[in-house]
Amino acid sequence: MLGRDYSDQICSISRSLEVVGERWTLLILRDVLLGRHRFDEFVESLGVTRTVLTQRLRLLVDEGVLERRPYQQRPERFDYDLTDKGRALTPVIAHLLWWGDHYYPEPAGPPRLLQHRDCGGPVEPRFFCGQCQAELTAGDIVAQPGPGLSAHSLTRDHGTTSRSGAAGSLTPPV
Amino acid sequence: MLGRDYSDQICSISRSLEVVGERWTLLILRDVLLGRHRFDEFVESLGVTRTVLTQRLRLLVDEGVLERRPYQQRPERFDYDLTDKGRALTPVIAHLLWWGDHYYPEPAGPPRLLQHRDCGGPVEPRFFCGQCQAELTAGDIVAQPGPGLSAHSLTRDHGTTSRSGAAGSLTPPV
Repeated sequence: MLGRDYSDQICSISRSLEVVGERWTLLILRDVLLGRHRFDEFVESLGVTRTVLTQRLRLLVDEGVLERRPYQQRPERFDYDLTDKGRALTPVIAHLLWWGDHYYPEPAGPPRLLQHRDCGGPVEPRFFCGQCQAELTAGDIVAQPGPGLSAHSLTRDHGTTSRSGAAGSLTPPV
Repeated sequence: MLGRDYSDQICSISRSLEVVGERWTLLILRDVLLGRHRFDEFVESLGVTRTVLTQRLRLLVDEGVLERRPYQQRPERFDYDLTDKGRALTPVIAHLLWWGDHYYPEPAGPPRLLQHRDCGGPVEPRFFCGQCQAELTAGDIVAQPGPGLSAHSLTRDHGTTSRSGAAGSLTPPV
């Protein structure tokens, strides 16, 4: 767990990375999304050491991202599946896939295609404004300090308020 | 760079993680998105060691995710900004933020809000089928082997074809 290093960050991104930011973790979740569920399947697929894999799986189960289910009694064996919380990471993994497809293309084309189950069409992400319903591009989106950051600034005082409190733009100023 | 461990994976997700999967890297990109651009700002914000930060920034510049620009001559100093390739990671970071907001909420509310620049409305992600235009949920999306995976299976033969070639569902079968 990255907590010791990341945990003083008042930021949902760093909180997420405490859980899924360790090496191999997102690839384990990708494997489960692709239909692998057992310890030995992860070892074979990833080439990760059993010790590291055990640590990663334990954290993911403890955090409720994966659930562990017995599938054999003697010896006792478990497989792993995504919880709703784990499935909610699908967009993170999908965007990593699309980014890799675009910037590190395989000569023959994408290794994996995300498709609409019913018609086989390609999946396309879009962003909208929940208020005016406009479709948004990256340049239309800004990051603003939210109530959680303000509350924190009021209750702790170690000089981070002005820095963390700054409004940010998701694109550089033009 | 995680290349040695990840590079035998024929997968755009692992290719992406070779570049942005190391510890701190996504938080550096978050910092740039929020308006931090200088080495000392990253050190102060992240508490990362200067050695590790230097390594991460070098990889991100080498890979064309960040660009380094001189802002002072004596002594020579640089700041860092996102390239188009770096900005294309915004959805990855946004979804990590939303996931953290949802599953690890701050009592007072989200620390950061992603808003529509024009009207201040909340940004909402949606997925569509590029063929039939239906709006998709996670259960509507399947991962299929693409041409890059098939080409690889034909040119290399170390027993991974059947495993890697399996179609995957982004949700477990119901």
